[in-house]
Amino acid sequence: MSDHSYILAVAQMGPIQRSDNRASVIARQIEMLREAHARGARFVVFPELALTTFFPRWILSDAEKQEFYEHQMPNAATQPLFDEAARLGVGFYIGFAEKDGDRYFNTAIITDQAGKIILKYRKIHLPGTAEPIAGRDTHHLEKRYFEPGNLGFPVVRSAYGIAGAFICNDRRWPETYRMLSLQGAEIGFVGYNTPNDHTANFDFDNLTSFHNRLSLQAGAYQNAMWIAAAAKCGLEEGSSMIGDSMIVAPSGQIVAQALTTGDEVITAKVDLGMGRLYRKTIFDFARHREPAEYGLITTRKGMVVEV
Amino acid sequence: MSDHSYILAVAQMGPIQRSDNRASVIARQIEMLREAHARGARFVVFPELALTTFFPRWILSDAEKQEFYEHQMPNAATQPLFDEAARLGVGFYIGFAEKDGDRYFNTAIITDQAGKIILKYRKIHLPGTAEPIAGRDTHHLEKRYFEPGNLGFPVVRSAYGIAGAFICNDRRWPETYRMLSLQGAEIGFVGYNTPNDHTANFDFDNLTSFHNRLSLQAGAYQNAMWIAAAAKCGLEEGSSMIGDSMIVAPSGQIVAQALTTGDEVITAKVDLGMGRLYRKTIFDFARHREPAEYGLITTRKGMVVEV
Repeated sequence: MSDHSYILAVAQMGPIQRSDNRASVIARQIEMLREAHARGARFVVFPELALTTFFPRWILSDAEKQEFYEHQMPNAATQPLFDEAARLGVGFYIGFAEKDGDRYFNTAIITDQAGKIILKYRKIHLPGTAEPIAGRDTHHLEKRYFEPGNLGFPVVRSAYGIAGAFICNDRRWPETYRMLSLQGAEIGFVGYNTPNDHTANFDFDNLTSFHNRLSLQAGAYQNAMWIAAAAKCGLEEGSSMIGDSMIVAPSGQIVAQALTTGDEVITAKVDLGMGRLYRKTIFDFARHREPAEYGLITTRKGMVVEV
Repeated sequence: MSDHSYILAVAQMGPIQRSDNRASVIARQIEMLREAHARGARFVVFPELALTTFFPRWILSDAEKQEFYEHQMPNAATQPLFDEAARLGVGFYIGFAEKDGDRYFNTAIITDQAGKIILKYRKIHLPGTAEPIAGRDTHHLEKRYFEPGNLGFPVVRSAYGIAGAFICNDRRWPETYRMLSLQGAEIGFVGYNTPNDHTANFDFDNLTSFHNRLSLQAGAYQNAMWIAAAAKCGLEEGSSMIGDSMIVAPSGQIVAQALTTGDEVITAKVDLGMGRLYRKTIFDFARHREPAEYGLITTRKGMVVEV
């Protein structure tokens, strides 16, 4: 287990409208990168799909969707972000839509302090549907625009601890955190775009912020990991998305929390050794887990009622 | 998915001292059973090891420990509880130390409204150690007094929904809830004895109630299940144990919560259909889980760092 501390930042982003270009988005990110650095941060977490609007809310033709994907990373538009991060010596996590040949993924990367990509993750838990649901104005069509990630749940040893990346809906699935912690991850980075107005069931939508917080805190605690979560939020193309970006300690305690639904930097001091107490006691997996009893988790996809 | 509602009760228990006999304990339980029934409840959840003091805090000889185990259920001491429950038409969950031949388990049962046992579960996640930790006055020696459960995570179709049982430390492990929900469980019952003074680390002990709540709420939400949790609590043989018995909806919302650390009945109306919204959308396992990506959860017991 790593035993050093550092200042970590989350750079929450307000909305990105369809008419915003990459240059304006990167300029906002560079401004927050500089603020984070000035506040002592060595790493910055940006949101999911942080370069464009959340386009899976719409039905787009194959031609129309192309503008939202990156063919390589970095590229001409994003190079200034990588350059500034390297100049400042700050690593970062960022999410974007990726086109790889004729395949499409919802992707995030982690860079080191020299701006070099040291981990790539492709979102495994794609929410929503491939086809629109009749009667709705806005949709959640991630299954239409991406295929499930094919890189597993990788971790990397870095100056920021043994780190993993995941994306948005992944954070609701306890399997995500467990896959990372079983590989020794000490910290997980996650970006999200989470509307609180899209199910047409107000009792459900009303809990969106609570469910975000609950999932992040439980994942941190049950795996003795730090979790840093960055929202893209606010009113984007008519859809209202939650903020509540936060940094959660291995105890499950929230140690930093965004207060707005706009561009906002939050920071906290991350003590990577903090998880050790949990991993030696209540969550010493080697002593307490009983994987022989967990068979259905990997052999069964959906619920099956046999009683 | 079941589609009916009923009133559910949790019967939290204050301490049971070593000098208390089974008859006095059963009398307290019968009193709470009657109160629950009078408040409309059709099912009552009692705590873990609800017939005796939490004896794994001590080092006991083989002869000394015998008094704490039940050789059959029901037995002469507990028959009055079963009889009264049957008379009232109220099912219940209760935990006890079980001796089966020369084997010892931390066990819970569920009965139907006729007092018949319809599910037996033996605790799988045993916390603590088999040997005492030097320098401590009190211990947590469940691994000394019990072997891990050998009945898997069973579920049963009942008048109370498709139900599962688990015990205390099981609630901190997301695998527990997932094993139940993959079999269609709509509700889970859990009893616990959770000291908040035993690690000698105040920063840790200070979070005991929060961790209880966080685990129960996350387990309910992430599996779209009702969860009803009953504490044995208060100052028992010099050890302080948390109360905070609660009933949690499939949304993760706490709908009933104990306010004391003594004998206390709480109730809530359980709508078994409530989980359906979650199971058709965000937690439609058949559409969204990706078990092929979860291999380590069942093939790896402890953490292994390979980076």
